[in-house]
Amino acid sequence: MAVAEARGPSADRQLAAEALGSFFLFATVVGSGIMGETLAGGNVAIALLGNTIATGAILFVLIAALGPVSGAHFNPAVTLVFALRREIGPGLAVAYLAAQLAGGLLGVWSAHAMFEAPVFQFSENIRTGQGQWLGEGIATFGLLFTILGCLRSRPDWVAPAVGLYITAGYWFTSSTSFANPAITVGRAFTNSFSGIAPADVAGFVAAQFAGAVLAWLICRWLFEPQVQRS
Amino acid sequence: MAVAEARGPSADRQLAAEALGSFFLFATVVGSGIMGETLAGGNVAIALLGNTIATGAILFVLIAALGPVSGAHFNPAVTLVFALRREIGPGLAVAYLAAQLAGGLLGVWSAHAMFEAPVFQFSENIRTGQGQWLGEGIATFGLLFTILGCLRSRPDWVAPAVGLYITAGYWFTSSTSFANPAITVGRAFTNSFSGIAPADVAGFVAAQFAGAVLAWLICRWLFEPQVQRS
Amino acid sequence: MAVAEARGPSADRQLAAEALGSFFLFATVVGSGIMGETLAGGNVAIALLGNTIATGAILFVLIAALGPVSGAHFNPAVTLVFALRREIGPGLAVAYLAAQLAGGLLGVWSAHAMFEAPVFQFSENIRTGQGQWLGEGIATFGLLFTILGCLRSRPDWVAPAVGLYITAGYWFTSSTSFANPAITVGRAFTNSFSGIAPADVAGFVAAQFAGAVLAWLICRWLFEPQVQRS
Amino acid sequence: MAVAEARGPSADRQLAAEALGSFFLFATVVGSGIMGETLAGGNVAIALLGNTIATGAILFVLIAALGPVSGAHFNPAVTLVFALRREIGPGLAVAYLAAQLAGGLLGVWSAHAMFEAPVFQFSENIRTGQGQWLGEGIATFGLLFTILGCLRSRPDWVAPAVGLYITAGYWFTSSTSFANPAITVGRAFTNSFSGIAPADVAGFVAAQFAGAVLAWLICRWLFEPQVQRS
Repeated sequence: MAVAEARGPSADRQLAAEALGSFFLFATVVGSGIMGETLAGGNVAIALLGNTIATGAILFVLIAALGPVSGAHFNPAVTLVFALRREIGPGLAVAYLAAQLAGGLLGVWSAHAMFEAPVFQFSENIRTGQGQWLGEGIATFGLLFTILGCLRSRPDWVAPAVGLYITAGYWFTSSTSFANPAITVGRAFTNSFSGIAPADVAGFVAAQFAGAVLAWLICRWLFEPQVQRS
Repeated sequence: MAVAEARGPSADRQLAAEALGSFFLFATVVGSGIMGETLAGGNVAIALLGNTIATGAILFVLIAALGPVSGAHFNPAVTLVFALRREIGPGLAVAYLAAQLAGGLLGVWSAHAMFEAPVFQFSENIRTGQGQWLGEGIATFGLLFTILGCLRSRPDWVAPAVGLYITAGYWFTSSTSFANPAITVGRAFTNSFSGIAPADVAGFVAAQFAGAVLAWLICRWLFEPQVQRS
Repeated sequence: MAVAEARGPSADRQLAAEALGSFFLFATVVGSGIMGETLAGGNVAIALLGNTIATGAILFVLIAALGPVSGAHFNPAVTLVFALRREIGPGLAVAYLAAQLAGGLLGVWSAHAMFEAPVFQFSENIRTGQGQWLGEGIATFGLLFTILGCLRSRPDWVAPAVGLYITAGYWFTSSTSFANPAITVGRAFTNSFSGIAPADVAGFVAAQFAGAVLAWLICRWLFEPQVQRS
Repeated sequence: MAVAEARGPSADRQLAAEALGSFFLFATVVGSGIMGETLAGGNVAIALLGNTIATGAILFVLIAALGPVSGAHFNPAVTLVFALRREIGPGLAVAYLAAQLAGGLLGVWSAHAMFEAPVFQFSENIRTGQGQWLGEGIATFGLLFTILGCLRSRPDWVAPAVGLYITAGYWFTSSTSFANPAITVGRAFTNSFSGIAPADVAGFVAAQFAGAVLAWLICRWLFEPQVQRS
């Protein structure tokens, strides 16, 4: 029996895809933040504009190229929801998390090396408070809602929709939509535009997972296939 | 007889989709306005640029994810035209309006909470005069024309076309293309970049409905299916 | 015999589509120029950025919505090339030109009315010289090359490709890529950011038609279907 | 036997497409750099923003229009990888390189002519050092990875993915992602925003080819079709 369609890429390719995608995603977030901050000369809005355009663009690219290999999560909150949906087993999910962190941190450090900054840094950028936690909760809720909504009806649109969702999120949430626990950890390792002080990571991550689980619960009902009569 | 295709999502899901989409749309309009105004330091063009990019991007996302559920109106002028086209009944249309306002207002207030501003505000932003009313009439005419034109030939393009239409509208109309009676009401509740003084709401809303009905009349002829000979 | 596919929209609908599309295109070019100039406070690059984003976005929208009705020319240089390709007859081509100018001028004047500026104006913006004429020749060559190249292999991509081509053209040509004889005439009627002094119109228009005809000649060879052996 | 599908465009059309695409690509990179630098009045971030938007946009256009003719390389690093993949013979690959350089240089000089600058210039813009070389290596690795990843699963997405990849690359790499040996040579011939001093060309080109070959090796494994069981 032909089972070609049911056989996806092997697990080592999936993990490599998660690591490679996280490398480019984190390098883009940190690198474009450094570039924007350096060139904009104190005009934070223009720095954020460069940071936004680069991040939104690379998300489309990475999901387009790597989606068919690993699903293109690059994000433990996304991996958690797919584990809750039983589309990825718990063992592979933990391996995804490790690949995301490892590849992503290498991306952060590569951004520093490219800009000839010290490779190892810790952020001093304070990002805390109820407003920003609410921002991360809403941001991550919206990210999962975007993915699950497109997957139900138009799976090809996940790539542009996620890129554009984060484009919007950088501006409409007070926290600039990290919306990703791995990238929150990664940003703690850069004392540049996109960084977050290590002490503030836990609050962001908790809000992100809460938003993701809430999205899973609501989308399970909202996007559930309707009963078909015949 | 199989009627699977004819059965859409249930009404409660449709109303939830309208409320959820309006939540994110209004939160994005207001939140990105606050972010732009805060970061741009008096450079209104850059603030509007951030506001524009976020709004255009989220419109693509919300229509992509929710279009198959509710039609992704988020806008009483759109709902009115679909009622005139008899694609939605009057009872459901009124319920759509209520969902748009309820979800949208929650979005406005959530934006305030995210940015740690007072939740309940009223705008002091004067937006009135024949020029701006003409702007809203043209803006809403164009929005409906965009939707009806794409629906006729390329229904998949409604999402990018609406996102890009509003992207253009923020810049080519003097009123920055609210083009949506519900969002006009919602913007009255924020004393920030995107607000409109409550006293100015009625003029905008009247112009919006006039533009929408005119678009319905013209598009009914312009995009009417041609008689087919055989 | 079924000829449904062969029957397009009636000529009156085609002309209405050309007029309506030109109305929105010209209103966007002029209106977003006024908005950018007003808000950017002397920073011409930011004004051009707003002008660019709005123009590129509306081109996608108008071609998406009106392409199936009239071909979405909105441009006498495009109409000329389709007449040379014998895809439109000379009588209809002249009517297209009239519709483009009439609808477009109404768009320019509407932009002035929206911004409460005097409706009737003439530009004092000097745009002349060999550099800018070369710019218009290259710009219009590239526009026709974009259209004819996409039409050959991926007709659905004409809308995004034209929007993005003009997005690039506003920045890479010294003349900011008017690339359209009708819009050149229309811009003579606005003494704002996007205007061109009436005395400079003829040079631009000549360069535009020259670039268009050259593109037609080259593309006829470059994109010619290959001989098929069997 | 029908071999229509197997017969592509003739070699002269392929070379013309490479030359024409390189003409517009290089003219856009240099021209939009001059425009941005001139208008932005010292605000380098805004100049780079204009440069970015124009380059990303024209890449989509050129790949959309010319991809079906020549593959739309416009880049010797891309041509090298397709030669390593045995999808283009060595003789044609060398001819591609010549067409890219000839068409591209004409584009650079045309940009100068459009802006009424001296046609023949050499850059004095120092771009060197390990950080920037790492930047070019990562940039070109990512470009090839983007192309090969999309080609495997979604060949239609090469055009938007490459445009958006370079959009991101202009901001996230310290070298602004030239990612193209031919354009590196071309940029040595302009003493404007996008230039690179001739002495610095070799370092960039070496890093670019190294990144491209590494991408070929990794993608050969990562995107290799899986063994199908039946």
